[in-house]
Amino acid sequence: MESQQATQVVLASRPATARASLENFRVETTPLPVPGAGQVLLRVDTLSLDPYMRGRMNDARSYAKPAGIGEPMPGESVATVLESHSAEFVPGDVVLAQTGWRSHVAMDAAGLKKLDVDGIEASAYLGVLGMPGFTAWSGLEVIGKPKAGETLVVGAATGPVGSLVGQLAKLAGLRAVGIAGGPKKCAYLIDVLGFDAAIDHRSPNFAQELEAACPNGIDVYFENIGGAVWNAVLPLLNQYARVPVCGLMVQQSGTLQHDTSADYLAATMRAVLTRSLQIRGYINYEFTEQYFDSFLREVGTFLREGKIKHLEDVTVGLENAPQALLNMIDGRNFGKVLVQVRSNASASRS
Amino acid sequence: MESQQATQVVLASRPATARASLENFRVETTPLPVPGAGQVLLRVDTLSLDPYMRGRMNDARSYAKPAGIGEPMPGESVATVLESHSAEFVPGDVVLAQTGWRSHVAMDAAGLKKLDVDGIEASAYLGVLGMPGFTAWSGLEVIGKPKAGETLVVGAATGPVGSLVGQLAKLAGLRAVGIAGGPKKCAYLIDVLGFDAAIDHRSPNFAQELEAACPNGIDVYFENIGGAVWNAVLPLLNQYARVPVCGLMVQQSGTLQHDTSADYLAATMRAVLTRSLQIRGYINYEFTEQYFDSFLREVGTFLREGKIKHLEDVTVGLENAPQALLNMIDGRNFGKVLVQVRSNASASRS
Repeated sequence: MESQQATQVVLASRPATARASLENFRVETTPLPVPGAGQVLLRVDTLSLDPYMRGRMNDARSYAKPAGIGEPMPGESVATVLESHSAEFVPGDVVLAQTGWRSHVAMDAAGLKKLDVDGIEASAYLGVLGMPGFTAWSGLEVIGKPKAGETLVVGAATGPVGSLVGQLAKLAGLRAVGIAGGPKKCAYLIDVLGFDAAIDHRSPNFAQELEAACPNGIDVYFENIGGAVWNAVLPLLNQYARVPVCGLMVQQSGTLQHDTSADYLAATMRAVLTRSLQIRGYINYEFTEQYFDSFLREVGTFLREGKIKHLEDVTVGLENAPQALLNMIDGRNFGKVLVQVRSNASASRS
Repeated sequence: MESQQATQVVLASRPATARASLENFRVETTPLPVPGAGQVLLRVDTLSLDPYMRGRMNDARSYAKPAGIGEPMPGESVATVLESHSAEFVPGDVVLAQTGWRSHVAMDAAGLKKLDVDGIEASAYLGVLGMPGFTAWSGLEVIGKPKAGETLVVGAATGPVGSLVGQLAKLAGLRAVGIAGGPKKCAYLIDVLGFDAAIDHRSPNFAQELEAACPNGIDVYFENIGGAVWNAVLPLLNQYARVPVCGLMVQQSGTLQHDTSADYLAATMRAVLTRSLQIRGYINYEFTEQYFDSFLREVGTFLREGKIKHLEDVTVGLENAPQALLNMIDGRNFGKVLVQVRSNASASRS
């Protein structure tokens, strides 16, 4: 039998400064929820932690409404159906659900997506087969349009998006060059993920090293950094190069800012014109309806065949989720950040 | 009978400074050329003057080789076949040809394109049905992807590219807003070309006036200016807006430079990301093979039906082409710049 108690982590207060702290969260114990008609009772197995969560802690206008004080933090999970009042699910089904930071939740069956876990770890659907993976795949396929023999450069290359972009490029026959911070991450790109080259953006010779790593120029630059990296990439972009833009980390972190004394916008637009470049921002949901199934099929197959590696940074215990989120905001993670919510004891009984 | 003499304008010397002058050209009289096997003798009717010609006067590396000293200036014309040693052409055929600045030329038939002049002035093939027209059409259709009800903004809107972009947008059911320099050009946009609004980029309230003219934001910005205009356009671009980039006049002219004290590149990339913008540079020849026939069919039909207006700025006499080119470089033209090479006397005899 499962425990008759549930756990949740709620937003206790809004951060007073840009830096959130543990005091902004509170762990609570509640009775096990009871599912109504058309609902299922879910046990959360793994919760995904993602950068957007910090934004929801503020009371700011955004594309999504903020988390309420005293309410569970929002979040996506893989969960197991314990009890079903819906014809669509039976106990034991594994689903993807917007559960928030909770150990158990009663939800309408209508909003749940049943997962195919044959040969695939369920947690993959929160990373390489989830939103980060789809961001990588859709930006590369729909905007990047990679062709064998071309050169791709991707920033934040050990992250959940960048690492998949580089591996998909390699599988498509491109030269893959990754940009990352520090020798450990650079070694991982080459030794584990099979990138052709890895450049440390902290190197004083960053621009020269990038140029040397791209002897035939750059055909696809997957932009998720911005700032100084862009300035080094721009002169290397080939005619008809494609630049999917899915993030600009430096504009959040304040690091890697480029030198603003020169008119880089004019240089950028001149390059756009004279080299027929395409720069295209996107958020993955633009492509969900048209492409998500193709993505799942293609990347799922690669995953089953062992052709794609993905790194998970797992924290055990829902009560440790607040610290794991703060660590991620500080960049102290290495791989997709997950929280194992289901206890090992419980796991061993299944 | 045609005259037994031909005229040509050659490059006498390279300009010593950025400013070319009449001394750099020389008008010469030569014997009428004699066509060989597979060739035709052409009489040039109308010569097109285009901005690229100034570049060819320099001995600089470029995508095209410079004009040689003592050789005719390069240029495209509509011409009439006087004599044919080719099975493909008969005297009287009207063709498009790279004749250079010459009154008569013997050319291989293989490089010539026969023009359909049924209901269309042959000179249209140098402007609205030629490269400027195709630049407008292909950038709008292939990159801009206009949809009825959207708002399009185009710069240099009285020019051969911008004027067609705006008219095509109107025909597709968009709101068309043109940017031009001075009240005369703005009035022309509204009164003659049927734009919905025209904004004078010389106005001290340019940005506010542009915003007022675009109450629903901007969905397609056809970029052929750059600089300060871009800074005013950027905040108005809607989600999924498309920005075909076919020119950056300010980077050549030195006018309308934007304020470089702020980091406009960061602002631009942020807008690209958060609003899923597409910025795409192009040169029309990228699309020629796939789209030129569609363009000729569609715009040719509009032209025959009187749905599109185009303005020609015609100088009479090949000997006056040097001054006409210098005037165009100084922006003193209004409409597509053409030189009527065939004399009126000759024209009346045909």
